[in-house]
Amino acid sequence: MNPADKTFAETIRARLGDDILRPVEPRYLDEPRRRFVGQAGLLALPRTVEQVAALVRLASEARVPVVPYGGGTGLVGGQVMAEGPAPLILSLERMRAIRAVYPTENILIAEAGAVLADIQAAAEAANRLFPLSLAAQGSCRIGGNLATNAGGVNVLRYGNARDLCLGLEAVLPNGDIWHGLGRLRKDNTGYDLRNLLIGSEGTLGVITAASLKLFPRPAGLGTAIFQVASPEAAIDLLALARDHLGETVSAFELIHRQGLDFLAEVLPDVRQPFDTPPEWSVLIELGLPAGHEPEAALESLFVAAEARGLVSDGVIAQSAAQRDALWSVRERIPEANRLIGSVSSHDISVPISRIPDFIRQGGQAIAALGPFRVNCFGHLGDGNLHYNVFPPKGHDRGEFDDRRAAIKRAVHDLVHEFEGSVSAEHGVGRLKTGDLERYGDPAKLSAMRAIKAALDPLGIMNPGAVLSDV
Amino acid sequence: MNPADKTFAETIRARLGDDILRPVEPRYLDEPRRRFVGQAGLLALPRTVEQVAALVRLASEARVPVVPYGGGTGLVGGQVMAEGPAPLILSLERMRAIRAVYPTENILIAEAGAVLADIQAAAEAANRLFPLSLAAQGSCRIGGNLATNAGGVNVLRYGNARDLCLGLEAVLPNGDIWHGLGRLRKDNTGYDLRNLLIGSEGTLGVITAASLKLFPRPAGLGTAIFQVASPEAAIDLLALARDHLGETVSAFELIHRQGLDFLAEVLPDVRQPFDTPPEWSVLIELGLPAGHEPEAALESLFVAAEARGLVSDGVIAQSAAQRDALWSVRERIPEANRLIGSVSSHDISVPISRIPDFIRQGGQAIAALGPFRVNCFGHLGDGNLHYNVFPPKGHDRGEFDDRRAAIKRAVHDLVHEFEGSVSAEHGVGRLKTGDLERYGDPAKLSAMRAIKAALDPLGIMNPGAVLSDV
Repeated sequence: MNPADKTFAETIRARLGDDILRPVEPRYLDEPRRRFVGQAGLLALPRTVEQVAALVRLASEARVPVVPYGGGTGLVGGQVMAEGPAPLILSLERMRAIRAVYPTENILIAEAGAVLADIQAAAEAANRLFPLSLAAQGSCRIGGNLATNAGGVNVLRYGNARDLCLGLEAVLPNGDIWHGLGRLRKDNTGYDLRNLLIGSEGTLGVITAASLKLFPRPAGLGTAIFQVASPEAAIDLLALARDHLGETVSAFELIHRQGLDFLAEVLPDVRQPFDTPPEWSVLIELGLPAGHEPEAALESLFVAAEARGLVSDGVIAQSAAQRDALWSVRERIPEANRLIGSVSSHDISVPISRIPDFIRQGGQAIAALGPFRVNCFGHLGDGNLHYNVFPPKGHDRGEFDDRRAAIKRAVHDLVHEFEGSVSAEHGVGRLKTGDLERYGDPAKLSAMRAIKAALDPLGIMNPGAVLSDV
Repeated sequence: MNPADKTFAETIRARLGDDILRPVEPRYLDEPRRRFVGQAGLLALPRTVEQVAALVRLASEARVPVVPYGGGTGLVGGQVMAEGPAPLILSLERMRAIRAVYPTENILIAEAGAVLADIQAAAEAANRLFPLSLAAQGSCRIGGNLATNAGGVNVLRYGNARDLCLGLEAVLPNGDIWHGLGRLRKDNTGYDLRNLLIGSEGTLGVITAASLKLFPRPAGLGTAIFQVASPEAAIDLLALARDHLGETVSAFELIHRQGLDFLAEVLPDVRQPFDTPPEWSVLIELGLPAGHEPEAALESLFVAAEARGLVSDGVIAQSAAQRDALWSVRERIPEANRLIGSVSSHDISVPISRIPDFIRQGGQAIAALGPFRVNCFGHLGDGNLHYNVFPPKGHDRGEFDDRRAAIKRAVHDLVHEFEGSVSAEHGVGRLKTGDLERYGDPAKLSAMRAIKAALDPLGIMNPGAVLSDV
């Protein structure tokens, strides 16, 4: 492959005009956890799918690698290419239109560069809900959310990005435009190219627009934090909640004392829900149809759970401000984590019923490696834990750089033993290609390589991401 | 390719024993609509995934075509190979075990040959719901449901087969076993092979087992049939119902007078909901959590809809027997259709808001072709209509065999013009390969061919299905 050099820039300008290229600012080469530093030959900012197709076709002819770029918020380095010939960064940021909203059909069509929060707002303006919700929603873009099959806090009820997408417009590695922006809930005509592109992290093509599912906005929202006896009790509480409240349980987030202690340590302005931080608690959110009282529903859930010995204390929000306050406990834990500085972070999932054993054995495995602090929190209803390992109090993560690999290996080996995933919602990117090799099913890996070679025989699309060897 | 002949039979017996082959009974060569007559060299009935893998590998070595076979209920000929060298029929009927049920995780693992009704029953025994529900559920098998991405009456709330599957075990065309039976709600490690196999109709591999999603069983079920003023009114009623009742609306089926007239004509034992069959009516089903009265909810929906002029009459079931009676109106319409005998049947979808115009223009297009009767009914909430064209009363479908192609073309052209799908839930099979060529997106078709060639370079898996030219 060749670098995106001056000659290639001239080819692009001759074809698409001067305006399409911009100088590469440092932000395109950075990523939130600073584990990777990217490089770039050129930065292109197309305005239309036809321009994207032309860029990909030119790159294909010149054998220049292409890195599709959304909001740059990915946590696994999928958006930064640190090695190889300097790529063309293809940013979708100028393609940010909400092309259409169909309230009757509960469908919204957005371009790939639309910021997630803008899509949420457009849905709300039509009295609908677009439920994808995650920490980076103010800056991540829907194309990246789809390319990485993003998760977040509402997956329990509404599914992940994959489940929220009905159709795509995309440019394939040969420059073909796939016009697949259907508004159909059912379409069984041929292979599922949509889901193949979703989660392929820019290695099989560039998503340029998506047809997205909207939902009725719940008439009443209720939020509570309940203190639970153990992770087992949290799982039983979830089952009880779903028995009582069906699909209206929209979030069910496990919180460990360590997270609350971190908040107290570095973000003391966050109001703690309990005087004494409990070992385990859960944040529950309900979204109920009209005519139902969320507070009453949460109270009756608490009473039923208390009778079973699952919960011992709880705070039920009585106002929107109190709901926000409870949510900020959960939402600011990642910020506290960053301020403390983890030695190693893990985005993992295991079968839900095995979570308690995983937490126990994980704690033992980490303790055997040193006096680390573990903050284990996340989307319990999805079996998805953020299992992050921190230095002892008063120490800096930098002191333990040489332990990171051993910690990561211990956690991932245990996840594998528990039939789990070492990337639940963040993707493989460039961070976990070795894990995919190590833990991935050989038949699946071989099929993935065959698919990559079939759709991108020149290997120009986001080289080194997902599959390191193609 | 070579036929599955006596020499190949000896190879199979030498490797896997005498018991694995059985004589080919006529039922394996038949299909429900009798448009195709299959052929078979051999019939194999493996008991394990290892035997399936061995069979596929032997077929690959001998260049013998393989037709995976489930319940044989498919309506598009995907399970019958009428042309080419006589294939090996690989029936999954001996692999019918429910391998495990995890009520806490809401997961059930079934082998591909498990009959859908048996899976529903196993879920119910664990106080859970497996919501896939369709007319053939007493004989169709889950492997076939997944291979064709089956739909049915509960898609509105729970999604189609694709949405109900968390993981697969499958044999790829080279004989590799993919062990992908995860119990994870979130797993972003690599390309989505699961969804690629789902809906590929046996052309990319053989599904041998699936990890399936279960749901809480709704505490209260409610069923009603409301007479609606028009298809527009039906769509507005659906929106109103979802505003009032959120996701608890689990079915929303449009019924045209023609279907009720057919019932009166050929199935007079079916009790009609109204004295005079209305032009349009809808069957609504609610599944509510504990503490809610379905009858009251349906009544208040009716009152609100009546105030808006959407409905004029209605029947709300007051008992399980009455619920069954209302459902039998909807469920026996396909049987009445078969007894009348359609000239041409179409499983189509269009964007929901365009349904009324589609019905109007479709009626005009058919009327221009002759004095046909149209029975248009189905899953309105999914935009999925079964649009079936019948001979005039007193005439036999056989008289109009020469009109079938023109009718099909007129309907499918209109569907395409309306941005719809010519196969909403039945698949492409061998019946609609020409339609896929005609209406399919060229970039998608070309990607499909590349994927097929990459995963099945010898072209042994279900040749002639989905893609006729590979």
